[in-house]
Amino acid sequence: MSYFQKTFQLPAYSRGFHLITPIVEREFAEIRQIRVGLLHVFIQHTSASLTINENADPTVREDFESYFNRAVRENEPYYKHDYEGSDDMPAHIKASLLGSSVSIPITNGRLNLGTWQGIYLCEHRNQGGRRTLVVTASGEITRPK
Amino acid sequence: MSYFQKTFQLPAYSRGFHLITPIVEREFAEIRQIRVGLLHVFIQHTSASLTINENADPTVREDFESYFNRAVRENEPYYKHDYEGSDDMPAHIKASLLGSSVSIPITNGRLNLGTWQGIYLCEHRNQGGRRTLVVTASGEITRPK
Amino acid sequence: MSYFQKTFQLPAYSRGFHLITPIVEREFAEIRQIRVGLLHVFIQHTSASLTINENADPTVREDFESYFNRAVRENEPYYKHDYEGSDDMPAHIKASLLGSSVSIPITNGRLNLGTWQGIYLCEHRNQGGRRTLVVTASGEITRPK
Repeated sequence: MSYFQKTFQLPAYSRGFHLITPIVEREFAEIRQIRVGLLHVFIQHTSASLTINENADPTVREDFESYFNRAVRENEPYYKHDYEGSDDMPAHIKASLLGSSVSIPITNGRLNLGTWQGIYLCEHRNQGGRRTLVVTASGEITRPK
Repeated sequence: MSYFQKTFQLPAYSRGFHLITPIVEREFAEIRQIRVGLLHVFIQHTSASLTINENADPTVREDFESYFNRAVRENEPYYKHDYEGSDDMPAHIKASLLGSSVSIPITNGRLNLGTWQGIYLCEHRNQGGRRTLVVTASGEITRPK
Repeated sequence: MSYFQKTFQLPAYSRGFHLITPIVEREFAEIRQIRVGLLHVFIQHTSASLTINENADPTVREDFESYFNRAVRENEPYYKHDYEGSDDMPAHIKASLLGSSVSIPITNGRLNLGTWQGIYLCEHRNQGGRRTLVVTASGEITRPK
């Protein structure tokens, strides 16, 4: 049984939803050593989040941005936390609606996602900059040490 | 320390929220071997999801369906991803709001849920068909192998 | 590799969002023994939830309460589950939107949260009373037993 953990930064993304599965797989090649286990991807921020959704048609990700901008509006008159910009408080709420981590089974050295599933970085700020992920894999390794 | 993992299909459910705790416990009897650990239930789809909520009164599950149909409406004029049916794009959004996995503590061979907690399959499509779960348990086993 | 698990009760909180990171760290000192691993915090209730968000400005937590009260309203005419009080059905929905657990990386004996991240107890009932958490940590311990 082993634990692997790595911290790395994503490139800066524009506000919206972005597929990052290939980056996670490339940056965290330790996945290949695990026969059966789990991958935990954690984002160390409160105005960006992670979710799993459709990896094919990019209009799904565009519709996510449209939906969440309507479900959590900027400049609500009742917001008290407004001094970091009109995109800030909505970003915190969206981040909690979607969540700060995803957990994915690992099977025979690969992420055991469904055919259409991918990991999304959800960037809720206009200028979020580079975001930091802490990725942890645990499980039984393919060849005992 | 051990990892157990199993993939299985649920029966096809109608659109709505359905209690599946007994199915998970029956299909994945390995839970009983774990003294202390965690169960991870993952759904390999992007238009159905998993959550934990009230296991008793079925009207809670009916109200969930009513709420989510109002919070994420079909046929929004701004949706671009619309060629898979009017229930498709809302299904993707609902799936990310609720999440693709649940994690539950295991204690003395049993799921350590609260008295009123159960695992819900959230079927967001009109005809979602059979859904596939990947279930992973990890922990210290009752009797060392 | 080790698993630690502990069940404890939080103090009773008023309806709203409350920072509980210091309580979790104090009640579950086993975190310090783990060199690399994960912490899983699970709430055994269906009308309160857990999320990770901003740990500094308390108005973020006030705005969360304002937002969720508007996004999931009381006394909706379509609710069928209404006999436990007008705050009950919204509490169930909020609990599933936010989730019943959070998972956080552990690194060198500490929760590896971002600078601005904290664990929120989300109390959705008017009189929720004391809530029970089941906290599980897994990972490689600093000094082998």
